Amino acid sequence: MYALKDFISQHDRFAALSEIELAEVGQGMALARMTVQEKHLNGLDIVHGGAVFTLADLAFAAASNSRGRAAVGINASINYIRPAKKGSVLTARAREIFSHRTLCGYTVEVKDDQDRLVATFQGTAYKKDIPLVTDNKQTNPE
Amino acid sequence: MYALKDFISQHDRFAALSEIELAEVGQGMALARMTVQEKHLNGLDIVHGGAVFTLADLAFAAASNSRGRAAVGINASINYIRPAKKGSVLTARAREIFSHRTLCGYTVEVKDDQDRLVATFQGTAYKKDIPLVTDNKQTNPE
Amino acid sequence: MYALKDFISQHDRFAALSEIELAEVGQGMALARMTVQEKHLNGLDIVHGGAVFTLADLAFAAASNSRGRAAVGINASINYIRPAKKGSVLTARAREIFSHRTLCGYTVEVKDDQDRLVATFQGTAYKKDIPLVTDNKQTNPE
Amino acid sequence: MYALKDFISQHDRFAALSEIELAEVGQGMALARMTVQEKHLNGLDIVHGGAVFTLADLAFAAASNSRGRAAVGINASINYIRPAKKGSVLTARAREIFSHRTLCGYTVEVKDDQDRLVATFQGTAYKKDIPLVTDNKQTNPE
Repeated sequence: MYALKDFISQHDRFAALSEIELAEVGQGMALARMTVQEKHLNGLDIVHGGAVFTLADLAFAAASNSRGRAAVGINASINYIRPAKKGSVLTARAREIFSHRTLCGYTVEVKDDQDRLVATFQGTAYKKDIPLVTDNKQTNPE
Repeated sequence: MYALKDFISQHDRFAALSEIELAEVGQGMALARMTVQEKHLNGLDIVHGGAVFTLADLAFAAASNSRGRAAVGINASINYIRPAKKGSVLTARAREIFSHRTLCGYTVEVKDDQDRLVATFQGTAYKKDIPLVTDNKQTNPE
Repeated sequence: MYALKDFISQHDRFAALSEIELAEVGQGMALARMTVQEKHLNGLDIVHGGAVFTLADLAFAAASNSRGRAAVGINASINYIRPAKKGSVLTARAREIFSHRTLCGYTVEVKDDQDRLVATFQGTAYKKDIPLVTDNKQTNPE
Repeated sequence: MYALKDFISQHDRFAALSEIELAEVGQGMALARMTVQEKHLNGLDIVHGGAVFTLADLAFAAASNSRGRAAVGINASINYIRPAKKGSVLTARAREIFSHRTLCGYTVEVKDDQDRLVATFQGTAYKKDIPLVTDNKQTNPE
C-alpha cells in the first residue's frame, strides 16, 4: 500500500495544513497521527473538534481507498469522549466494518498517547466505478 | 453578540489556520464562511471532508455558546451532498433545534455560492456550569 | 402516489404491529402518524425510542421509495428532544434533502399534537437497480 | 443485575410487543435477542429497520441503566449492513465506550445466527439525578 500512502501524503493538502501524518495503510485499515499544537486549538484551549474529525477522516479516507477503487465519504459521525490538550499525540486507527460492491463502512478510534479514547468516528463511503489512480509522477499539485 | 464573535475570531486557532471566518452570531444561530482554496483540497482535488466539517463545526460552536454558558460539543454527524471545488465560497448557517438545561442541539446547512447544498450537519452540545468568559483583554493566546 | 401508500400500508408488517399509519406520500415526501398507546411505552412510562424511530423510519422509507425505484436505508440517526406520553399523537414528516443517481437523503421531524418537536431523524438510502413494484394483487403477505 | 433485567423485561412494553428478549445485563453491557418473525418484516420482506433499531436500543438502554442511575437516550445512529430474513435469530450486544458523570456512550453490534454483522449502532445517554428504581413489586404496569 505504499503507492496509496504516498499518494495521499503528497496530495492531501488539508491534511498537510493540519500536520496530520498518514502512518500506515493496509487492506481495509489505516493509521493517522497528529501532535496537538497551538494551531489545532479552539477558543477553550483544547483541540478543535474539526481537527480531531480531520484526523479520523484521513484514516477513514485511506482505509476506504485501500481496496483499489476510488471511494468518497458520504456521511460520518463523531463522538467526543475526552478533550486533548497541546502536546498530546493523537492516533486514529480505522477498521473496516463492511465492504460491499458500492458501499463500505469504517469505524475509527482516536486515542491519546496514554491510550485513552479521545473520540470515536464512523464513516460510510461510496465506491466509484473508476480505479484509484495513485501514479503521481506527473500530477504533483504542490 | 459582538463579544462572542470577537472572542472566537481571535482565539480559535484551528479556524484561523483553516481561514474560516465567523461572519455572524445571534441568539441560537451563527454563520461562518470559507472560500475553498488550494489548502482545503484533498487528494481528489475537491474540498476535504474535514474542512467542510470544521466550517460547519465553527458555526455550531458559536451558536451553542450564544446562550451565555460555555458549551462543548459531545457529538456530531455530517452528510456530504455535493463536492465543492477550489474557488467556491461556502457558507455554514447553524440553527437551534432545542436548548434544554444542560443539552442543546443544532443543525447546520453548508451551501455554495450558487445556494446549492454541499453538506448537512447536526451537532449536540453540553452546557457547562460556568458562564462563557469572552473578556479577552488579558488572554490573547497568540 | 396511492399505489406506494397502499403497498406500504398493506405490506409493512412491523408498522402495522406498531399501529403506525402512513397518512400521505408525495414526490420526495411522506407523513406518518402514531398515537402513543400503552404498547409503545418503555420501562420509564414514556414512548420507547424504538417506537419513535420506527415512526420516523416509515416516513423515510415511503419518501425514499417515492421516486419510482426501490430504495433501502443504509444508515440513520435520531435525536430525542422531548419525551412523549400515552395519548400523544405523533406526526413524522419526511422531507428530501437530496436525490442523486444511487443515493438519497431525508430529514424527518417528529412532532406531538401541540406542534412541539419530539425528535429529529436523518436517513440515507440506496436506490436499487430495480423499479419499485407496488402491484400487490398477487402478493398479499398476510 | 437481576433486578434491572427483570424490571426492563416486565415493564418495557414496546420491547414485549416486538418480542425482544433481554438475555443478559452486566456492568456497562447488555445482550438482547429477537427471532425475526412475520411481524418484524417490512414491505420488502426483510426485517424492518425499526425492529433492528429497537433490538439494539433495548441493549443500549439496559447497558446505560446498569450503573445505578436512571439514564435516557439522547441520540443514536445505526448502520444497516446486511438484511435479515424471517427465521434469523438476531443478537444485539451493547458495550460501554465511556461513562462520565452525566453522559455515557455505547456501541451495539447486531449479528445473525451465523455471526455475521447485520447492523452497528451507537447511542449516547444522559444520566438523571435520580437512582434507577427497579423495585417492581408494586408497579406492574400490565
